[in-house]
Amino acid sequence: MSSAPGTAQDLPHVVVVGGGFGGLGFTRRLARAPVRITLVDRRNHHLFQPLLYQVAAAGLSPGEIAEPIRSIVAGQDNVQVRLDEALSVDLPGRTLHMRDGSLRYDHLLLAAGATHTWFGHDEWAPHAPGLKTLDDALEMRQQILLAYERAEWADDPEERRRLLTFVVVGGGPTGVELAGALSEIARHTLSRDFRRIDTAMTRVVLVEAGPTVLGAYPERLRAHALRQLAEIGVEVVTGRPVVGVDAEGVLLGGEGGTERIAARTVLWGAGVAGAPLGASLGVPLDRAGRVLVEPDLSLPGHPEVQVIGDLACFAHDTADGRPLPGVAQVAMQMAVLAADNLRARLDGRPTATFRYRDLGSMATIGRSRAIALIGRVQMHGTLAWMMWLTVHLVQLIGFRNRLAVLVQWAWSYLTWERSSRLIRGEATPPGLQDRGGPELHEHLPR
Amino acid sequence: MSSAPGTAQDLPHVVVVGGGFGGLGFTRRLARAPVRITLVDRRNHHLFQPLLYQVAAAGLSPGEIAEPIRSIVAGQDNVQVRLDEALSVDLPGRTLHMRDGSLRYDHLLLAAGATHTWFGHDEWAPHAPGLKTLDDALEMRQQILLAYERAEWADDPEERRRLLTFVVVGGGPTGVELAGALSEIARHTLSRDFRRIDTAMTRVVLVEAGPTVLGAYPERLRAHALRQLAEIGVEVVTGRPVVGVDAEGVLLGGEGGTERIAARTVLWGAGVAGAPLGASLGVPLDRAGRVLVEPDLSLPGHPEVQVIGDLACFAHDTADGRPLPGVAQVAMQMAVLAADNLRARLDGRPTATFRYRDLGSMATIGRSRAIALIGRVQMHGTLAWMMWLTVHLVQLIGFRNRLAVLVQWAWSYLTWERSSRLIRGEATPPGLQDRGGPELHEHLPR
Repeated sequence: MSSAPGTAQDLPHVVVVGGGFGGLGFTRRLARAPVRITLVDRRNHHLFQPLLYQVAAAGLSPGEIAEPIRSIVAGQDNVQVRLDEALSVDLPGRTLHMRDGSLRYDHLLLAAGATHTWFGHDEWAPHAPGLKTLDDALEMRQQILLAYERAEWADDPEERRRLLTFVVVGGGPTGVELAGALSEIARHTLSRDFRRIDTAMTRVVLVEAGPTVLGAYPERLRAHALRQLAEIGVEVVTGRPVVGVDAEGVLLGGEGGTERIAARTVLWGAGVAGAPLGASLGVPLDRAGRVLVEPDLSLPGHPEVQVIGDLACFAHDTADGRPLPGVAQVAMQMAVLAADNLRARLDGRPTATFRYRDLGSMATIGRSRAIALIGRVQMHGTLAWMMWLTVHLVQLIGFRNRLAVLVQWAWSYLTWERSSRLIRGEATPPGLQDRGGPELHEHLPR
Repeated sequence: MSSAPGTAQDLPHVVVVGGGFGGLGFTRRLARAPVRITLVDRRNHHLFQPLLYQVAAAGLSPGEIAEPIRSIVAGQDNVQVRLDEALSVDLPGRTLHMRDGSLRYDHLLLAAGATHTWFGHDEWAPHAPGLKTLDDALEMRQQILLAYERAEWADDPEERRRLLTFVVVGGGPTGVELAGALSEIARHTLSRDFRRIDTAMTRVVLVEAGPTVLGAYPERLRAHALRQLAEIGVEVVTGRPVVGVDAEGVLLGGEGGTERIAARTVLWGAGVAGAPLGASLGVPLDRAGRVLVEPDLSLPGHPEVQVIGDLACFAHDTADGRPLPGVAQVAMQMAVLAADNLRARLDGRPTATFRYRDLGSMATIGRSRAIALIGRVQMHGTLAWMMWLTVHLVQLIGFRNRLAVLVQWAWSYLTWERSSRLIRGEATPPGLQDRGGPELHEHLPR
């Protein structure tokens, strides 16, 4: 109760939308600033997105990569947390409208992040779940584990093959990580669990429309990535866009004409788009629905509004003129500058323009397999993986989580044992549902 | 793939319904028996029921008290696991009918456990969730945490009071544990998280229709329990049956006429009844819907069928002639005898009758508060609590879980920090829902 309502009513009211890396980083940077902050998120927890695929792959439990926002800012007296969903912004009226109320602001930070998109084919969504939230991850886990349960008792060999075929769409880091994890679960974790099927028969196909996976990396590292994917048994198909997804599998387009891959489980690691909130601003967006921000991260014509993270399209002075990628690193750096620019405005000083310092990037492929690019240094294999592991553990918010995850991973590494192979709710008979889709929903837990 | 189908078709087929303490204990006891076992459960995990309240109270995460059944029996070659829901038994046809198929059996073990009952008032269910499954626990957690989120922003003091009032129905171990945990979360864990409300104002009311809580314990221990409950701020109301539950709270009956407790969160720790499967047998059941078994745990007239655990009503030679309680200890002891009796039948030997050895019982009330009764020895306070902790950790199936839970608890004990304060899914606006009830469902994850 450190700052009871009223005590600080005279201070400028800063409303922050989003408790991700951007919103939290911004909020914490203002810990000692003379402002009242209200942090709005529709979820009560901060999510460590980079490890979300581990929850989907039953390697980690939700609690290990998520932390209640309230406890993260508990020590910061100038923050109030509000669990609600931001719907639209009234720029002239300086008001944020939420599902359950609205907030007047003197300054607004939009860090609402991104959502996934099925390239205008929303009918694909139920058959190809994406990976943005804990819900998504648990839905994926559900579908993956149920596929094996059904395969174990499927009498028709065709159906068994469909159940044991997993298609991952999208050759970016998410897709690669998912495909790698799936393949390892099948060959190691689950191998002793089943009697009637040989889980090593599992087929994991990674589909990428572009000419290559992990396109953001230099050619040599991509080659290493491909080799490592092959080593753990992931089939990689490039240059073939997905032109159809249904309960039976995916349809691939491209030169070679169309081709169908029969699969009961299709996971979506492809398109992302800025959160819908961006569109409510009535300002120019890029093709991915991200807000085109000024060099100082403010909204054109509205210095009192800043947009950062995945929701922002920042293409000023980037090496290749392409917008910055939607990664935690960018969001965290933007958060710092946005906070400093806010203080500048409060002090009547000029704002600074954003410069991105690329601290390097890594993609993990599997157990002691990864690639890393730090400046000019290229790494792959165990070394890159150890590095990936270290960086992510260190970044994980909340000491307890970090320790728990470390124990978790040490254990999994030694035993191939996955802790979190829980299918929540009750089994729904394959006959009555399409692949653990909607019908499963009602059965499943909070 | 240690025992491929076919290799053992000639062995008698033993079908086990339920992967709880009873079903698993029975199955493992038959590890070296010349039988083919099919273990059927509608969930893919074994649940450590005694700690379920900790998941509801955000103290533990689901993965810490649940273990995939497949991995528990992975090493046992004569077992196949089937994820499906048992619906009915055709005794003459020796067939178990499930949602997605049926199984012929030579021998059937029913250990389907219990479900909760609202004493014929199923309309209370949505307003007073019970605690039997992980789903239940996560639903409870959801409601508890959302109540605080809403209270934080509730402007009407009346509504705020309703949101900060928690009623726990049922003075048995479950109710006592829940009430104790709720009270401690409010006074310690959450105290620093909120700005506008003082969580210490939380009111936790434990309601028991009978004359006393923890009725199974001797008078002196009950007194200690009451004192310890009072110490941590739980209000205990005895001798007052619940006569109504709705979105506004509970209505109490009893001598003093009716009285209403206005509360947005009502948790049900009261009635349990045998699983519906029991009724499908067409044999005599007790008032709680449990199957009246023979002294050797077989079904009257059907030696090839045995019923154990919470689904069984065993009143033969019990001290007070009352049926044995539905606790893990009873189920585990029954499992051993049932397995031995099965082997006896296979060898043409006579079956033995069940004798329950009470190894003692304990109820925890809160941090270093508990009561324990071992034989004639009565314990309370820290000693009893340490004992409770030890016994439960040792019993937890799966080394990893045990270690994780221990770390977890050590951490919570030192810091009052709760790891699992996650509200899954999106916030649903208080206006649009009744207390995180049904409407929340769709939002919530797998």
